[in-house]
Amino acid sequence: MPHLDRTPAPVNNSPHVVIVGAGFGGLACAEELGGTNIRVTVIDRHNYHLFVPLLYQVATAALSPADIAEPIRRILSRHPNIDVVMGEVTGIDLAQRKVMLADGSFVPYDRLVLATGSSYNYFGHDEWAEVAPGLKTIENARAIRARLLMSFEQAEMCEDPARQTALMTSIIVGGGPTGVEMAGSIAELARHALARDFRRIDPRAAKVLLVEAGPRILAAFPEDLSNYARRKLEELGVVVLTGQAVEKIEPGGVTIGGRFIPAGTIVWGAGIKASPAGQWLGVETDRAGRIPVAPDLSVPGLEGVYALGDTAVLAGDDGKPLPGLAQVAKQQGEHLGRALEASLSRGEAMPAFCFHNRGNTAIVGRSAAVFDFGKRRLKGWFAWVLWAIVHVYLLVGFEKRVLVTMQWLWRYVTYQRGARLITRDAPASPLGQEAQPFVEPKRRQG
Amino acid sequence: MPHLDRTPAPVNNSPHVVIVGAGFGGLACAEELGGTNIRVTVIDRHNYHLFVPLLYQVATAALSPADIAEPIRRILSRHPNIDVVMGEVTGIDLAQRKVMLADGSFVPYDRLVLATGSSYNYFGHDEWAEVAPGLKTIENARAIRARLLMSFEQAEMCEDPARQTALMTSIIVGGGPTGVEMAGSIAELARHALARDFRRIDPRAAKVLLVEAGPRILAAFPEDLSNYARRKLEELGVVVLTGQAVEKIEPGGVTIGGRFIPAGTIVWGAGIKASPAGQWLGVETDRAGRIPVAPDLSVPGLEGVYALGDTAVLAGDDGKPLPGLAQVAKQQGEHLGRALEASLSRGEAMPAFCFHNRGNTAIVGRSAAVFDFGKRRLKGWFAWVLWAIVHVYLLVGFEKRVLVTMQWLWRYVTYQRGARLITRDAPASPLGQEAQPFVEPKRRQG
Repeated sequence: MPHLDRTPAPVNNSPHVVIVGAGFGGLACAEELGGTNIRVTVIDRHNYHLFVPLLYQVATAALSPADIAEPIRRILSRHPNIDVVMGEVTGIDLAQRKVMLADGSFVPYDRLVLATGSSYNYFGHDEWAEVAPGLKTIENARAIRARLLMSFEQAEMCEDPARQTALMTSIIVGGGPTGVEMAGSIAELARHALARDFRRIDPRAAKVLLVEAGPRILAAFPEDLSNYARRKLEELGVVVLTGQAVEKIEPGGVTIGGRFIPAGTIVWGAGIKASPAGQWLGVETDRAGRIPVAPDLSVPGLEGVYALGDTAVLAGDDGKPLPGLAQVAKQQGEHLGRALEASLSRGEAMPAFCFHNRGNTAIVGRSAAVFDFGKRRLKGWFAWVLWAIVHVYLLVGFEKRVLVTMQWLWRYVTYQRGARLITRDAPASPLGQEAQPFVEPKRRQG
Repeated sequence: MPHLDRTPAPVNNSPHVVIVGAGFGGLACAEELGGTNIRVTVIDRHNYHLFVPLLYQVATAALSPADIAEPIRRILSRHPNIDVVMGEVTGIDLAQRKVMLADGSFVPYDRLVLATGSSYNYFGHDEWAEVAPGLKTIENARAIRARLLMSFEQAEMCEDPARQTALMTSIIVGGGPTGVEMAGSIAELARHALARDFRRIDPRAAKVLLVEAGPRILAAFPEDLSNYARRKLEELGVVVLTGQAVEKIEPGGVTIGGRFIPAGTIVWGAGIKASPAGQWLGVETDRAGRIPVAPDLSVPGLEGVYALGDTAVLAGDDGKPLPGLAQVAKQQGEHLGRALEASLSRGEAMPAFCFHNRGNTAIVGRSAAVFDFGKRRLKGWFAWVLWAIVHVYLLVGFEKRVLVTMQWLWRYVTYQRGARLITRDAPASPLGQEAQPFVEPKRRQG
């Protein structure tokens, strides 16, 4: 058996860095500080680091939650100077330099790193969240998966063609990478994995609507890649509505352009807002709740407090704010970890962060992805293979990489999905279930 | 893409067999009737068939729910004469030959097969179910997994040694195969997978108690195999208490022999009772709620109604009731499927069921399992390998087999567990969480 690492804990007068949030940024920062003489405490609400870019595959029954989540303790266990605390932060006592937790305990810090990420922004309609979940947590993904699969089950049990059509309609609000990935993946689920399994409905007739308020989907990408993604989605049968804002979301459907469209599954991917870290600090934030930071990622006016990733806003070389991407958070975490080590161990000054664009990507469907490297662009089958390689490579943990690769290969060959479970922790379709006699319903005829 | 099977549905005047429950028995019966001219409808509360023998591995973070569950529709999709209905049965109208569903609909039948399985029996203390979940559903397994992992997280956050010990104690009630498997698996989780990941607690000090009211564990096995299992569990650090009944279970602990033992995780595996199928029929059942059936599995006095597996009770060759094992349910399902086909298609008489013992098995831990083939017995490493081969072979779906094998091999080499997720759909440890300051707690010293 593996023997216990008994390296003694660092002495108690070494500086203490507290990192709130074990997403891409917080984890990268902690890993850089691993093995140093600096004491580090990582606080997160969950016991796992979640690989959010693949969460849409959990929502569409392709992967299991555990395939894309790894215990934070296990990732950091080889560094005896790092403690992991599972807890909910409720505020920060700046005067006494303490992070307050929901259970009444606190963690004192010398340096504080806020890497708390973001949640979906419903633009003042928080009541929509229940009906149209975003895609940020495992619970979100399970809820969407259950609604999606349950809608097909309910349609199969149903006699009314209008209701069947409604149940088999999915509406995705927001044409960013998450919206595009969800729309493509739902369309493929219905056309392939479910196609043979029902007797009275034809899952291939399922409708998928992708609604974007702006003039084009994937607005962060060059226009030719946007157009390619739209064309590929349309080939998959997705209806792409651009320049159309959602007016209302209610159980059972969405109102767009004054017209009510009934739907069994509604997914929100239209905008994000930062976590409440700005409120904890009492600092002025931008409209999305992000904390403006100095080039060294410090929060101006607060000594020893840093913010990064989706929690922070910092202008890039082109003067525009850096985008809310995993690679930005990760690079900032690495940078800050190295800078804190140099500063605390050797008294060096904190250098400015500089973003290196490694390429922005989105996947549309089987054999179709887009890559934007700034000067170079890539689309199609090769971009899709590259997307898969990059995502497998970035997954934490060798076991996860092998399992995800195996499942993808199997899926590529068979068109099947491995995680088609409806479990009870997630509510069923917002359309509900009506009582009706079963009496010898008509089967679908070929 | 795979093309849709458009074989027309059988004509409406062919006989209609309704199978309630898609466990081992119901599914085997349905598969035997697949491809015949008999119309078949399979009704289940869930959309998936669950491979219950491996559920303890989900509860102890070794496998994901989707690894051991497969959509019923997908398993049966190649048989166009079989319909699958996801629904909750509320009763049976024997006069009109209808199965009533919770949504108010009904399914008419010519022959009815009840294969609804069993649930845990709390012997009049149903309030214990919340505190000490059994191990029958995915939701059960996720609840136990979350409690188990959360208890270690809470112990790590805690300063009080007595409370740490309590949180790190698991009590398993019932020394049958499920109890033995859970006890061994929890002990190994604590001793290996968690050992390096905590700083203030030593997970290897976790206590696992297995409590059995009878004189020995694995009472259904020969005494030498029982003794072997006990010795192996004790080597893993499990405390085995036999001849001791549980007097009370409450949030935070169990009272045994007048003594209260505090525990973070309590698991129930002490006795099963049949599902309410007997009540639906209004027939006399045995003490465990099972329906006595004739040798051809028919329910005496009711025409065209059959029961099998854990729902039914039938004497074996030795005059004792057949045990509640997957292989009994499966053989009965296959037998009944073949018999119904012969009877409905060719008017043949229904033959009596005869059980062929394929061997009874239980796994204790790494490299330790027991097999009882009646005349021959097997224990140790070879039994363990055989256990693994048999269970992988019995798993439905090629993808699951490959994924589960890979994960087992990886785990065998690394001692790690792949699904250590605490998700919010499951309640935390019954010990709750108390407020306490974190102030520089002492670390564990080597």
